[in-house]
Amino acid sequence: MSTRRAIEQLLAAVATHELDPREAADLLADLPFRDLVFARVDTHRELRQGAPEVILGDGKTPEQAAAIAMALDAAGASSVLVTRADDAMRAAVRDLLDDTREDTLARAIWVERRPVEKRGTVLVVSAGTSDGPVVREARIRADLLGTTVVVHEDVGVAGLHRLAPVLPDLERADVVVVVAGMDGALASVVGGLAACPVIGVPTSVGYGASFGGVTALLGMLTSCASNVTVVNIDNGFGAAYVATLINRL
Amino acid sequence: MSTRRAIEQLLAAVATHELDPREAADLLADLPFRDLVFARVDTHRELRQGAPEVILGDGKTPEQAAAIAMALDAAGASSVLVTRADDAMRAAVRDLLDDTREDTLARAIWVERRPVEKRGTVLVVSAGTSDGPVVREARIRADLLGTTVVVHEDVGVAGLHRLAPVLPDLERADVVVVVAGMDGALASVVGGLAACPVIGVPTSVGYGASFGGVTALLGMLTSCASNVTVVNIDNGFGAAYVATLINRL
Amino acid sequence: MSTRRAIEQLLAAVATHELDPREAADLLADLPFRDLVFARVDTHRELRQGAPEVILGDGKTPEQAAAIAMALDAAGASSVLVTRADDAMRAAVRDLLDDTREDTLARAIWVERRPVEKRGTVLVVSAGTSDGPVVREARIRADLLGTTVVVHEDVGVAGLHRLAPVLPDLERADVVVVVAGMDGALASVVGGLAACPVIGVPTSVGYGASFGGVTALLGMLTSCASNVTVVNIDNGFGAAYVATLINRL
Amino acid sequence: MSTRRAIEQLLAAVATHELDPREAADLLADLPFRDLVFARVDTHRELRQGAPEVILGDGKTPEQAAAIAMALDAAGASSVLVTRADDAMRAAVRDLLDDTREDTLARAIWVERRPVEKRGTVLVVSAGTSDGPVVREARIRADLLGTTVVVHEDVGVAGLHRLAPVLPDLERADVVVVVAGMDGALASVVGGLAACPVIGVPTSVGYGASFGGVTALLGMLTSCASNVTVVNIDNGFGAAYVATLINRL
Amino acid sequence: MSTRRAIEQLLAAVATHELDPREAADLLADLPFRDLVFARVDTHRELRQGAPEVILGDGKTPEQAAAIAMALDAAGASSVLVTRADDAMRAAVRDLLDDTREDTLARAIWVERRPVEKRGTVLVVSAGTSDGPVVREARIRADLLGTTVVVHEDVGVAGLHRLAPVLPDLERADVVVVVAGMDGALASVVGGLAACPVIGVPTSVGYGASFGGVTALLGMLTSCASNVTVVNIDNGFGAAYVATLINRL
Amino acid sequence: MSTRRAIEQLLAAVATHELDPREAADLLADLPFRDLVFARVDTHRELRQGAPEVILGDGKTPEQAAAIAMALDAAGASSVLVTRADDAMRAAVRDLLDDTREDTLARAIWVERRPVEKRGTVLVVSAGTSDGPVVREARIRADLLGTTVVVHEDVGVAGLHRLAPVLPDLERADVVVVVAGMDGALASVVGGLAACPVIGVPTSVGYGASFGGVTALLGMLTSCASNVTVVNIDNGFGAAYVATLINRL
Amino acid sequence: MSTRRAIEQLLAAVATHELDPREAADLLADLPFRDLVFARVDTHRELRQGAPEVILGDGKTPEQAAAIAMALDAAGASSVLVTRADDAMRAAVRDLLDDTREDTLARAIWVERRPVEKRGTVLVVSAGTSDGPVVREARIRADLLGTTVVVHEDVGVAGLHRLAPVLPDLERADVVVVVAGMDGALASVVGGLAACPVIGVPTSVGYGASFGGVTALLGMLTSCASNVTVVNIDNGFGAAYVATLINRL
Amino acid sequence: MSTRRAIEQLLAAVATHELDPREAADLLADLPFRDLVFARVDTHRELRQGAPEVILGDGKTPEQAAAIAMALDAAGASSVLVTRADDAMRAAVRDLLDDTREDTLARAIWVERRPVEKRGTVLVVSAGTSDGPVVREARIRADLLGTTVVVHEDVGVAGLHRLAPVLPDLERADVVVVVAGMDGALASVVGGLAACPVIGVPTSVGYGASFGGVTALLGMLTSCASNVTVVNIDNGFGAAYVATLINRL
Repeated sequence: MSTRRAIEQLLAAVATHELDPREAADLLADLPFRDLVFARVDTHRELRQGAPEVILGDGKTPEQAAAIAMALDAAGASSVLVTRADDAMRAAVRDLLDDTREDTLARAIWVERRPVEKRGTVLVVSAGTSDGPVVREARIRADLLGTTVVVHEDVGVAGLHRLAPVLPDLERADVVVVVAGMDGALASVVGGLAACPVIGVPTSVGYGASFGGVTALLGMLTSCASNVTVVNIDNGFGAAYVATLINRL
Repeated sequence: MSTRRAIEQLLAAVATHELDPREAADLLADLPFRDLVFARVDTHRELRQGAPEVILGDGKTPEQAAAIAMALDAAGASSVLVTRADDAMRAAVRDLLDDTREDTLARAIWVERRPVEKRGTVLVVSAGTSDGPVVREARIRADLLGTTVVVHEDVGVAGLHRLAPVLPDLERADVVVVVAGMDGALASVVGGLAACPVIGVPTSVGYGASFGGVTALLGMLTSCASNVTVVNIDNGFGAAYVATLINRL
Repeated sequence: MSTRRAIEQLLAAVATHELDPREAADLLADLPFRDLVFARVDTHRELRQGAPEVILGDGKTPEQAAAIAMALDAAGASSVLVTRADDAMRAAVRDLLDDTREDTLARAIWVERRPVEKRGTVLVVSAGTSDGPVVREARIRADLLGTTVVVHEDVGVAGLHRLAPVLPDLERADVVVVVAGMDGALASVVGGLAACPVIGVPTSVGYGASFGGVTALLGMLTSCASNVTVVNIDNGFGAAYVATLINRL
Repeated sequence: MSTRRAIEQLLAAVATHELDPREAADLLADLPFRDLVFARVDTHRELRQGAPEVILGDGKTPEQAAAIAMALDAAGASSVLVTRADDAMRAAVRDLLDDTREDTLARAIWVERRPVEKRGTVLVVSAGTSDGPVVREARIRADLLGTTVVVHEDVGVAGLHRLAPVLPDLERADVVVVVAGMDGALASVVGGLAACPVIGVPTSVGYGASFGGVTALLGMLTSCASNVTVVNIDNGFGAAYVATLINRL
Repeated sequence: MSTRRAIEQLLAAVATHELDPREAADLLADLPFRDLVFARVDTHRELRQGAPEVILGDGKTPEQAAAIAMALDAAGASSVLVTRADDAMRAAVRDLLDDTREDTLARAIWVERRPVEKRGTVLVVSAGTSDGPVVREARIRADLLGTTVVVHEDVGVAGLHRLAPVLPDLERADVVVVVAGMDGALASVVGGLAACPVIGVPTSVGYGASFGGVTALLGMLTSCASNVTVVNIDNGFGAAYVATLINRL
Repeated sequence: MSTRRAIEQLLAAVATHELDPREAADLLADLPFRDLVFARVDTHRELRQGAPEVILGDGKTPEQAAAIAMALDAAGASSVLVTRADDAMRAAVRDLLDDTREDTLARAIWVERRPVEKRGTVLVVSAGTSDGPVVREARIRADLLGTTVVVHEDVGVAGLHRLAPVLPDLERADVVVVVAGMDGALASVVGGLAACPVIGVPTSVGYGASFGGVTALLGMLTSCASNVTVVNIDNGFGAAYVATLINRL
Repeated sequence: MSTRRAIEQLLAAVATHELDPREAADLLADLPFRDLVFARVDTHRELRQGAPEVILGDGKTPEQAAAIAMALDAAGASSVLVTRADDAMRAAVRDLLDDTREDTLARAIWVERRPVEKRGTVLVVSAGTSDGPVVREARIRADLLGTTVVVHEDVGVAGLHRLAPVLPDLERADVVVVVAGMDGALASVVGGLAACPVIGVPTSVGYGASFGGVTALLGMLTSCASNVTVVNIDNGFGAAYVATLINRL
Repeated sequence: MSTRRAIEQLLAAVATHELDPREAADLLADLPFRDLVFARVDTHRELRQGAPEVILGDGKTPEQAAAIAMALDAAGASSVLVTRADDAMRAAVRDLLDDTREDTLARAIWVERRPVEKRGTVLVVSAGTSDGPVVREARIRADLLGTTVVVHEDVGVAGLHRLAPVLPDLERADVVVVVAGMDGALASVVGGLAACPVIGVPTSVGYGASFGGVTALLGMLTSCASNVTVVNIDNGFGAAYVATLINRL
């Protein structure tokens, strides 16, 4: 149910005296999240936007991350996913939730409570082996949201012949996610070959003038392929999420 | 027709002796564009990707831009669009093509030869009046490609009440394009309210620490709204193009 | 009247059947600004925040700025102020509004319709003569909002003795605004001497490693005087506005 | 007692022959701090500016920090606060001072010798759970200086409904401190809703294009909400101090 | 055999019915690399470009690097080289391949299976002792590819007399590689003395305003010696490779 | 004659008493250039490095550039070339030298006094029409130094099929110069296809996140194609010069 | 007379009842400059630091600069110098002062009222012709302050032989000022040859990766020659002033 | 003995047949340093520039640093100093040399073999306790070269009264070295008070927008005090060395 329609229902309930105006204002404010003091867990997000909130582990204590995960699970999320979770954080989550699965390279831990209906495909293409963790984060995210994921790793650019086996999947894909560090040139090359939207994920792979992903980010932003949009450095999660949204239209 | 299928047809023609192998290799290379010496006009782009090439005026002489426009038109493009075209360049295009239309604020000139079938809607929301030229560039591009465009300008962020009249259109939109300079915070706010993909266009509007759009760009890239992807500063054209691609899926 | 209380009144009107729920939602959205298509003039801002909206001329056409100014004036603003207005823009405003006053160095034009009650003083201190335009913008803004302004220009830092005549006013001030380019060191020096809040305005004055105000901005942000907060480069307007807010507490 | 008045009293003492001129000059220089060779402890700061000096732990050895803390305590400060103190430093301070209290997340240790009269309130609002340490530093500082602190954590922006329960406190607050990393957009949103001064504290929370807080810093500086001023990245202490100064006016 | 000629041979095979067109397309794509899922090992690179692929250890797990090394070795590479390999990675490679040699300072491990014909010389000149690891990486790479390497370390610039013993080798060299951190000025000095191409390798040696090699990089790019081209920071490998290519012309 | 051999001859002349030691020192210093007070024209450069000095117009007055050009011509340079010369500078040179030729797009003026022996070829490939001026500067420079130049303009990357007609020339080239703005990805693509050295020239073509060529520069520096070295932004002249040096080996 | 001694004299006058304490405080503050409202002319600077204040034209109106110049002249400065003065500003100064002299290339105008005693020499060395304006600004400043100036222009680095004629003057100099743009490498080379202090002046000469002088600035700061200190980009005036101070010791 | 005079003596020896020309060239090149393969120890530097070479520990192995130290000592240096030497490096030096002294905070180790004649004084002033290591490095360096050092630490800026006890020493100093992080404003304040040359050393002390010393560096470079020159971040050694050179004039 959308925000506006919720407001209108509340107003209607006030009009029929089922609800006191002051209470209505409070309800409006208090309903859609659970307050853990240090965090407000957005338990209504799945209803509102079709996908449960994801917990970014960075900067949180293991205990905080685990508590938020448990709150989301208790509120009935279809799945719970914690990303950028180091060993200690994954252990804390594992202690509080059952049936968790993990990917140590991607530093992710998750549970899937209810399968989601499959809709559309996303092709994830990476430039090099070192982009692996970001590829995996994207795959996990898209998979949990019901998108079929096809992956081609280490496609490179300096060696276009390596791109050849990707072409059939490129034609079939609804959306493409390109994961690349260094110069990020793979996004331009794939963008020029694809007829669908391409989402570039610059990675922090590289050294020297790679500047932790900034060069790949700038390269993707200035790509002459007009079908490329870009997300934050190493944000495999975000790219996969948008790919899923596009597939749901 | 896709590139790969074209290659297979050529190979088939070689297999039936209709074509000499060496000629086939040459054909492969020479076909899909027209050579103007200083430019290779991609006349097959519309067939390949569904949208004719657009001419970015920046850095070209008026004569070069006009000649490319004429070549695209002669090759049968459904529309021809020149962006970032100053007065002299628009005059040069006007001299060579008939039936042109112009938008001086957006510095664009175009002709539409064949109407394109309408598919989907895009909502374009801008933060302030000064973002107007970028909004217009986006509108022209989406319009020519058959997307229905709804525009809300000067929505701001410092004054959320100004966002209220946008909400109904926000719910109906298939894709949203957010155009904002300064801190670019509007993308985060709209991203949090929308259930569909949001494409952020940072603009060079602002002064001081706006750094010609860099602050808005960085803000949009680090938005906590996961449905936001980003294009280059002032690239209204690119955002509209991707919105169109999404609507075609 | 605050936003929340307005919402409660609307809800009450709905509860008493004076208002239809759907109309209430529309009213909520449409009331507080006037739509000029390219701009939504925030005519309720003065009621809501105690100060009328100010028009930043940058990036607007002269006609747009003048039309917004007229709309604000027509809506009954106590004063109308256009900043960063070049000659053409000031002329356009002068054509539409009567009784305008101007400061060409500060590139500002304004009308004052109703005197505002005087509350508190702000001391504006600048490092050099070239900071003059920013000083003036700050003075105009604070003056229109009812704050008594005391100005000391060209106080420098390399020559602390020049600071001596400022000391008595420094003791009397409720808030201090420090305007400085180059290294912005004056903010640290004044911050160390003042017992009240100090707002730093870095200016784009300087050359080479001044980087258009970035060095002054960074210097003020890292000042070891804990009473210094900072606004954007050349943002004399903003500093004066916050000084006024502080004086109203 | 202000600096200027102190100078005048000294001059008077010289005029009445109670003091030799040369001695007066020496007194002027030597009085207001205690020299620890590696540090000059500003023991008169509380008299001069109303708040005792705070010890920033960064870059000091545990022994240096503890010695300065003891000197301030011995000089009669109403409270002694060491920030950014790691485990070793907090242990060193704990060894030298009695009645200390600590916050490990905020890495702070302090003693309160005399309660300070309560004046005004500050609302501290944070965007996410990871901003917690900065929120706590701000709370400790304001609390010790006699300001009533109200805290709302994890308010976000991508989900404006989470902002609703903050609104009543927002109306009551004298000053608001907004703590946010990533894009820092919360400062713009809160700035647009508040009628009082808002102090933005960008945090180093985030990854990739967050650049350790730079993006949040730039976003807050270019906020279109004119009531926002900004302090250094992660400087919760400074924001709380200025909030206290404003409340004392 | 070049890519184009390979395509022509395939087309010829199709023309003579030795090959089915669809198979030809597949062959085209699948041939030149071996798929390890996480990596596509470019086993044909030595045939195509005359030098076997090199494995950059950064960002790979020890197991991944070792597996790629083994695949290259099995495919018949004349030599296998892993750079930026820490202790664990070198141990993993050592376990899988026999006859390895190592340089701990350069963090490199390699095997040489077949000696390469010697062609041309390269002079490697470094500014300081700390540039040693980069010098060694360059020497190993050039050596394995058949280039005679002459090294002069710690030549400096602030002390031109130290350059004197380099002069005879400078006259004899076919190509010069200059390795320098800090200001990178040695590239300009050597560039002005040499009559042959000079390749600058900025290093991350230095502190403060060296910015991890950025200053040396910028200095080399803006050298007034027109014979200087530049590679990435610390990229001794790349400079040596290009020097080898030049010597093969 | 090399510098070292010149020194030895001078020493020999001193040994045979043909030359006084003090005079020898003076000769050493005074010989190889002509002093115009504001400029020291390197008249011996052609002897020493095989190519005459080139005059970079930027920052010089028209009169200075013309006087230096005349001095070089008078000293017997095989050719004189002034680059980045605006209309006034080209007029000043035209007034002082006869037989000049010009390229207005490249802003270059030159005279050729003696044909240079032809050696080797360089392929110059550009990404877009707007890179034209840099392409021309490279062509003029290489041409005057006796290198055969083949040019392919507007090859793009987003549309690899446009690269096809370049392939035959790519195989034949001794050196390749890639000229590209925006993301500079063409250098990586060409680098992966070429077996010879590739010199990347980033151009200032582009807008927004292109940052005047910085993005292309960084992209080329971090190219995963190991045969790419890079010169300064827009430095077509330098790339062509190095290509010539390589061809002379 | 030094500041401290002035304070002591004032205190003595108070002690002898010659002066009222409150008057003393006022005198202290008001004496050493002349207030032009927009500028506080430091008329005592020559007494205090041995050199009259210099007027930096940047950011001032012609009228302001001329008025300050006249005030300094009227106050008895030994010389008055306005730097970075465009045509209009120099005209305004010329109108108000007699006996002015000008250098259009350096954009400076000055009068010399009393010759200053000659003390010491400074050698000014520049890398290229385009550095001329900065060289001249340095020469004018040093000359007016009584330092003997020796200039060598266009010394370069890529061509060390051009440095030879500078060596004798380098040995005789008390201080050296090195003026260079691009990579600024000349500072390192000269620093390594000189036994005296060297002051580097990076200039904004160059293009692309020169970044308006930033590269030269960073290069000079990271010079391995330990006798190099640096001033702001294009700050020939400052370097000459410090050279003069050193010569006065 | 100067370089030039050494060249003339060699030439004279050749002229008198005492020396063969070719041998003379070799001698010229080989004499002034000792080759350790990985390092060329500049054993003649003390003769040439009056101060022995200093060993920067950064980037060297402990063994390399110790070997260079021993070579310098063996060659008769008056003192040997290793800076930025961690525990392992200091241990290695201590093993090879006798009579070493150390400062762990400054990470320095040194031996003094012959006292140097005392000449002049330098005042070292620091902003805060955390600047201590840089202050000590400066003191050690100046002390070993015969300069009398006076130190005032933790002088601050936000609290000008703390500057008072420094004033007498400021008047007596021949040169001042200002050590400050954060905003580096102390350099401007001291520069305005001092009549002698001031050398600014920005330090990496601070957090957030201090950017590891960049803000202090930029602030010092743009100081309006014209007597300030600047060295690299944390380069206490360099500042002290230049101070010594100035005192020797």
